[in-house]
Amino acid sequence: MSEQVPPPPPPEVLVLGPPGIFRTKNYEKLFDDRFRVLKPWQSPVPLFQFLQTHAQNTRALVCGGGFKHLGSETLDRLPSLGVVVVTAAGLNHIDLQECRRRGIAVAYASTIFSPDVADLAVGLLIDVLRRITAGNRFVKSGIWPVKSVEGSYPLATKLSHKRVGIVGLGSIGQEVAKRLEAFDCKISYHSRSKKSSVSYQFYSDVRELAADCDILIICCALNDQTNHLITKEVLEALGKHGVIINIARGAIIDQKELVQFLQEGRIAGAGLDVLENEPYVPPELCELNNVVLSPHFAVYTEESFRDLCELVVGNLDAFFSNQPLLSPVLKE
Amino acid sequence: MSEQVPPPPPPEVLVLGPPGIFRTKNYEKLFDDRFRVLKPWQSPVPLFQFLQTHAQNTRALVCGGGFKHLGSETLDRLPSLGVVVVTAAGLNHIDLQECRRRGIAVAYASTIFSPDVADLAVGLLIDVLRRITAGNRFVKSGIWPVKSVEGSYPLATKLSHKRVGIVGLGSIGQEVAKRLEAFDCKISYHSRSKKSSVSYQFYSDVRELAADCDILIICCALNDQTNHLITKEVLEALGKHGVIINIARGAIIDQKELVQFLQEGRIAGAGLDVLENEPYVPPELCELNNVVLSPHFAVYTEESFRDLCELVVGNLDAFFSNQPLLSPVLKE
Repeated sequence: MSEQVPPPPPPEVLVLGPPGIFRTKNYEKLFDDRFRVLKPWQSPVPLFQFLQTHAQNTRALVCGGGFKHLGSETLDRLPSLGVVVVTAAGLNHIDLQECRRRGIAVAYASTIFSPDVADLAVGLLIDVLRRITAGNRFVKSGIWPVKSVEGSYPLATKLSHKRVGIVGLGSIGQEVAKRLEAFDCKISYHSRSKKSSVSYQFYSDVRELAADCDILIICCALNDQTNHLITKEVLEALGKHGVIINIARGAIIDQKELVQFLQEGRIAGAGLDVLENEPYVPPELCELNNVVLSPHFAVYTEESFRDLCELVVGNLDAFFSNQPLLSPVLKE
Repeated sequence: MSEQVPPPPPPEVLVLGPPGIFRTKNYEKLFDDRFRVLKPWQSPVPLFQFLQTHAQNTRALVCGGGFKHLGSETLDRLPSLGVVVVTAAGLNHIDLQECRRRGIAVAYASTIFSPDVADLAVGLLIDVLRRITAGNRFVKSGIWPVKSVEGSYPLATKLSHKRVGIVGLGSIGQEVAKRLEAFDCKISYHSRSKKSSVSYQFYSDVRELAADCDILIICCALNDQTNHLITKEVLEALGKHGVIINIARGAIIDQKELVQFLQEGRIAGAGLDVLENEPYVPPELCELNNVVLSPHFAVYTEESFRDLCELVVGNLDAFFSNQPLLSPVLKE
């Protein structure tokens, strides 16, 4: 009989955030079964002290979207860190330059969420144009038998053949475009540079795009260049029949201006999965029938959570076995 | 100076219904400017008496979707009738055989509404799968800052790659299919006969279609063959993860069974623009978060009303000038 060699201890993974997938107990268990998971949010000790006590040898970090800023202050306390796996597609909360300087690899959710986010963008758009949430409220309140539909609503707006401007034609923007082409919409876009891979009309100026469109869909990443990209001037160009959809990040729109435009009927409606200071919601928006709001849940589907879980575990496995990461952050 | 010949009196048009477009005063005016319009709903006289008194010479009738049944009882009182222009795409309220027997031509809305109805079908579907109306209520009620999204909802369901079964692959069904292909859904269908023009999988048995699908979308006409086509057995085959969308006519689904399946979680959700005894709504449906209801307003867009108005006027003009109708009802 050969001597039993004890298995090596499971590798250690620090989790900050914690990511949405951990709300599903099965997925948290999947991590617990495979790694020794450090969960500072379960400790009464302040975060930095926790890291200094427990994470000096930790080589891998999983960073949820709820962790506000991963920069040198935190990284200074993680001297052994070799990889950050971000559970979001947006990286505005990660100091990539600082990670690069320290030789820390970064993986992220990549395009895994793109179809879900695009689906919600289209859903919010149809909802705003066709007044679905208002219609649902009308029917469920029980007044359909006593009040005519026609008397209760202004007519809705057709989607087909509308001119749709996509701000940011990355993976999500392209999924939105593909979907809305099937509704016979005319697609054009604004992004940092013209894409040779598509035939949609390109606008280097977002205000000019808005002026030529009925609908604006915000799909770009949030960074210094896109913060408040949608100014008062852009909303003015979109005009009183225009509709804006945002499934990207709240701060891309100047929200104070947006609220005023909606209140004054200077644009026709909005569908917003994200807000500038979420979860805080301007009370004015809650009173408007032509505004549909959702709680930043564009990626909250069973299927995407399962896929994300597999991708995060796959990236960690790759890191610990010195293989290439599955979804590395590309050099900007 | 030539002698002035008085213009001929405008042709007379009887309107029954009255159609939704008449709720828009501009469109009613457009008819009034062009025709001498008989509007029995404005008269205190009972309908049949009104027809006997005023409509003995009337050659053209515009019939709104709200007129419950156009059959021999009404037609007997309109001896000069030559054309019926129906303002709906569905003809279940028109006795076509009786019209044919009397040599009365029939025109209808044809495919004019198909894109709008298909758009609403997709909107209701995304709404049910992604819980948009529930999310909107959550955010607008102001509890987002105090209650986590994850704790408040089960995860939503992804649309991409779902198997969609379309019941009735006419003009609306094909528009729905075209849109959902762009969401990478797998389309199959049930109809009276296999269509040689499409490559989607055909099911001669609607129960088998339901068994092989995640989503069922009802797009067929209501007639003797499709009344209660969606039985308890079909819903059972669709199963507890299945979702059903109905933008056709309420009576195509056995509504009593549907309500029970939804209440007991034996199907996952429903999006219904039509109900069996609308505007009366089963109160059980109003309490379910996984049910999105709209008040049979799939065609209520500014653009479709304008297009319908033009089509109805165009058909009347064609009739009065002995030209072929623009949108005749095809021989079944």
